[in-house]
Amino acid sequence: MAAIMDPIGRAARRAAAQLALTDNDRRNQALCAAAEAIRGQCQDILAANARDMQSGAERGLSRSMLDRLMLDADRVEAMAAGIEAVAGLPDPVGKVIAEWERPNGLRIQRVTVPLGVIGIIYESRPNVTADAAALCLKSGNASILRGGSESFHSSNAIYACLRDGLSKAGIDVDAVQMVPTKDRAAVGYLLSSMNEWIDVVVPRGGKSLIKRVQDDARVPVIGHLEGICHVYLHEAAESAMARDIVLNAKMRRTGICGAAETLLVDRAAAARLLPPVAEALQAAGCEVRGDETARELAEGIREASETDWSTEYLDAVISVRVVDGIDEAIAHIGRYGSGHTESIVTDDDAAAEYFLRNVDSAIVLRNASTQFADGGEFGMGAEIGIATGRVHARGPVGAEQLTSYKYVVRGSGQVRP
Amino acid sequence: MAAIMDPIGRAARRAAAQLALTDNDRRNQALCAAAEAIRGQCQDILAANARDMQSGAERGLSRSMLDRLMLDADRVEAMAAGIEAVAGLPDPVGKVIAEWERPNGLRIQRVTVPLGVIGIIYESRPNVTADAAALCLKSGNASILRGGSESFHSSNAIYACLRDGLSKAGIDVDAVQMVPTKDRAAVGYLLSSMNEWIDVVVPRGGKSLIKRVQDDARVPVIGHLEGICHVYLHEAAESAMARDIVLNAKMRRTGICGAAETLLVDRAAAARLLPPVAEALQAAGCEVRGDETARELAEGIREASETDWSTEYLDAVISVRVVDGIDEAIAHIGRYGSGHTESIVTDDDAAAEYFLRNVDSAIVLRNASTQFADGGEFGMGAEIGIATGRVHARGPVGAEQLTSYKYVVRGSGQVRP
Repeated sequence: MAAIMDPIGRAARRAAAQLALTDNDRRNQALCAAAEAIRGQCQDILAANARDMQSGAERGLSRSMLDRLMLDADRVEAMAAGIEAVAGLPDPVGKVIAEWERPNGLRIQRVTVPLGVIGIIYESRPNVTADAAALCLKSGNASILRGGSESFHSSNAIYACLRDGLSKAGIDVDAVQMVPTKDRAAVGYLLSSMNEWIDVVVPRGGKSLIKRVQDDARVPVIGHLEGICHVYLHEAAESAMARDIVLNAKMRRTGICGAAETLLVDRAAAARLLPPVAEALQAAGCEVRGDETARELAEGIREASETDWSTEYLDAVISVRVVDGIDEAIAHIGRYGSGHTESIVTDDDAAAEYFLRNVDSAIVLRNASTQFADGGEFGMGAEIGIATGRVHARGPVGAEQLTSYKYVVRGSGQVRP
Repeated sequence: MAAIMDPIGRAARRAAAQLALTDNDRRNQALCAAAEAIRGQCQDILAANARDMQSGAERGLSRSMLDRLMLDADRVEAMAAGIEAVAGLPDPVGKVIAEWERPNGLRIQRVTVPLGVIGIIYESRPNVTADAAALCLKSGNASILRGGSESFHSSNAIYACLRDGLSKAGIDVDAVQMVPTKDRAAVGYLLSSMNEWIDVVVPRGGKSLIKRVQDDARVPVIGHLEGICHVYLHEAAESAMARDIVLNAKMRRTGICGAAETLLVDRAAAARLLPPVAEALQAAGCEVRGDETARELAEGIREASETDWSTEYLDAVISVRVVDGIDEAIAHIGRYGSGHTESIVTDDDAAAEYFLRNVDSAIVLRNASTQFADGGEFGMGAEIGIATGRVHARGPVGAEQLTSYKYVVRGSGQVRP
């Protein structure tokens, strides 16, 4: 594996050094040229995707896997537009994020710089190839991409367009590289033996991928765990708002990490709040599983088991638990949650602030759907995912989060006493 | 090892959850009470240190090791005063570091929160026990301390004072814990098997310790590599300033990571700049090793070998290389440096800015000594070290760098379209 991977690492490091010195215009030029290439080579990309779809079908991939894998003209166009949107973001590099002067006259600045070389390990969606590489490039980072074997041909066709864009802008094409083998050993090698060249790895995919990356990595990981997101209906929740938020948080899209998986309802108001919510969910095709009290209060709720509380369904299923007040809700979230996103619905300001302060998740909301957990919805542009770790970046990881910083100190001959 | 370490991890996690909800006053109260306890128990601490010093001498520790290990009344007082200084820092937790409103009315805040549980692995200096625990406590983090076996009794005596302070302030004493065994397997266990409870590990010590931590850790590491720091005398350097800065950067204290190890001098001005610098260094007792040109230009310079360029002497030794201009200087730093701290001495603004931009180190200075690489000198208060990694924190790691953040989003019933 060293024979394949080490040259990739070395080339990435070299390209990163060059890339760190390019300006925003040059990087944007590469991004826009890549978007144009994707539009121009749409037929090639679709043909490559057809090969992946066929072998996926032969290998018996699930319908949802095939849907994630599938490209059509609209999805290709969305990819190109996504790259252009990244180009339109403000320059995340070279920003002075803090500045002060010392009594001895030293002027100190904290200035953002690229992280360096970023390894991206992802699964079946071929568009991640474009999204991730674009965010890395925008933030001045070289990237080493390793996509799922199912999307091998699609990803490589997109990859060719990215290299085309780099080349047109006069940037070292090795600023974006893709692991050229489907061999799974390449992932292990990338995680364990390339820390000389890779500064950080971003895994993007399901639970087992993330777990493997966190177990095997000898490089820093910006982790994205599952999203076991909660909506908590406080006793002072307004009933229609509660229904709308739960319905949206669960059913707008069930397959994203910000989708709600568990509903917590205050006992004091459960008889008022739960029946309309359960009815709306069931009318939308959602299976509701609940504890005993929930099943007594509303029709058609199936019995929830202990494992339901820690399950990320990513499907039209929700678990419901009736709790004795805000502290029990917070304790439930602390015990079963994944630290991703939780929302309280309440008209009580004090209760809301208490929840927002005491719940330890990357994103805590009041009176809003958990499906807002998204870099775009936060106004940060595209994102590579939602980090649930606490180190480096937490919450949506966009171009800004793919930077580090350095200290620039200007003096006039100061020596330390 | 699980029988000893797992309960420590669980207790730390529990204490961290409580600590995250304490306010700054409470944490400061614990810090001040700990400082008072250290003053009050000075005799006990010195007696414990005498035991460590005796077994250190018996085990044949080097003089510099014994000096690092040694405590006297002044050093104990400095420890207490250091804890009080940390208490005096602004509250790093609960700070709104960014705030904006979305077109849909969602109000988004990015608010600092503690990292959680921090493992600190360090070597012989017993004062690290107090410094590190104080910074963790200030920033709302629980800490698990693992000091060097040489300082076992000293560290435990200091540790007792820290617990005393916590107890007086009504904070769970397990907010600071010390690994109760000298068994080296405890370090391995802490690094590899406690990621359920430990959020980040900060190693503080020599090269072999850091390397071991980076190799073995299954948790994020805020890394502190060696400091192979450079001073570069550009051809437009003023001679007296060049001499004073090099002398200070090398000789003020030779054993700290911000001490200069290599001097680079522009060929165009080497005949003017190098002789007075070499003379001043030698007069101060510094051994100078140089390349051929350097040896021709100044008296008494010994021959430098290839390994000199990548050696952190931490001693009164410096290597000197004559370079063909700024790009060769930058390339030398990129090849041999450790990404810690580098300084250019020049009166040429354009050259200075070029160096500051193109050198990829945590700290880059113009016309100032590399020995300013220090959290205190940066005005950040105490520091746990200088991070040379690129992820999470880079440069001095103080209380502010020991925080993460979360997003707090306040809505009025928004659902995602």
